[in-house]
Amino acid sequence: MKILLIGANGTLGSAVHSALRKRDHQIVTASRSGSDISVDITDPDSIRSMYERAGRVDAVANTAGSVPWKPFTELSAQDMRDGLTGKALSQIELVRQGSMLMGGEASFTLITGVLTRDPVVTGSVASTVNGAVEAFVRAAAIELPHRQRINAVSPTVFAESMDVYGDLFAGFQPVPVAVAADAYIRSIEGRQTGQVYTM
Amino acid sequence: MKILLIGANGTLGSAVHSALRKRDHQIVTASRSGSDISVDITDPDSIRSMYERAGRVDAVANTAGSVPWKPFTELSAQDMRDGLTGKALSQIELVRQGSMLMGGEASFTLITGVLTRDPVVTGSVASTVNGAVEAFVRAAAIELPHRQRINAVSPTVFAESMDVYGDLFAGFQPVPVAVAADAYIRSIEGRQTGQVYTM
Repeated sequence: MKILLIGANGTLGSAVHSALRKRDHQIVTASRSGSDISVDITDPDSIRSMYERAGRVDAVANTAGSVPWKPFTELSAQDMRDGLTGKALSQIELVRQGSMLMGGEASFTLITGVLTRDPVVTGSVASTVNGAVEAFVRAAAIELPHRQRINAVSPTVFAESMDVYGDLFAGFQPVPVAVAADAYIRSIEGRQTGQVYTM
Repeated sequence: MKILLIGANGTLGSAVHSALRKRDHQIVTASRSGSDISVDITDPDSIRSMYERAGRVDAVANTAGSVPWKPFTELSAQDMRDGLTGKALSQIELVRQGSMLMGGEASFTLITGVLTRDPVVTGSVASTVNGAVEAFVRAAAIELPHRQRINAVSPTVFAESMDVYGDLFAGFQPVPVAVAADAYIRSIEGRQTGQVYTM
């Protein structure tokens, strides 16, 4: 398959890249810089040019998205808007534009995270945004044109990120990022749709 | 208790109003028009004036929120932004501002709906927005200052709305709006927090 991997240089993106290479897929990478295609997924015009350059693909896999982390009592209205733009509207726009351009059996795999279900302090924007994307995935699955599919990968904290996020996620069982990468393979090569793969 | 009821003239708002009156609460109503206080909850400044006029209350109960309904393939990027503004950012801003102004045991009760879990055609914006608000409620619950609480009421289609929405919700079991109103009472008078009351 020809697969467009967005956010290809991050911790998760690199792991997905490795996993895809082992499966003999043709991979086109995209990210802010250092990939085949430069893209800012918070900008619909940038998404449009990315798709023009990538051409038709069989799967779009996104691992990119960022949100502000702040104690709730210090949160501004703008922080919440920034989070929705950075990880929810961006991913939804990837699917909205992509669904019009891609073939009948294309799939979309988005990134969310455990905070949808299990919040942590300073993570209220992340929780909100993940909740939006997971509900969107279930809803878009029943309306995508042709036989297109959509799933979300919703990992807990990565073992590889415990030095940075370990205090926030005290007592959470981390997973190796390779396990989350496998969920992308499952979404891309399987036939399920509307699923949120938790781990 | 002194309760600020927002969206007091809608189908659900009127039912919550009736339920609250039976419990001998002091009720201050707010809505776009026809209530004690005029408010547009999509405008943070309008929320600010509403809270100034209402003064300190023991509970904020919101039943207002609107989203575009459209087939996924006809959805614009703006439709999704409008939905998030109309029902997610608006409700989150009610809590963000309210939490700074209200007393130690104030509660916030927000409105979501069944589409978070069970999507219907043309409802992808509604699903996304409900998912955002439900995850926000779980996250804010662990960070609200003092002993403030927050819950969401997530009803399925109302029996009273089946003439309008019945085709969209074919086969869903409708509930009387009074049952959803009871969930507001449960949220306001109970001690739970971070709950999504489904029915």
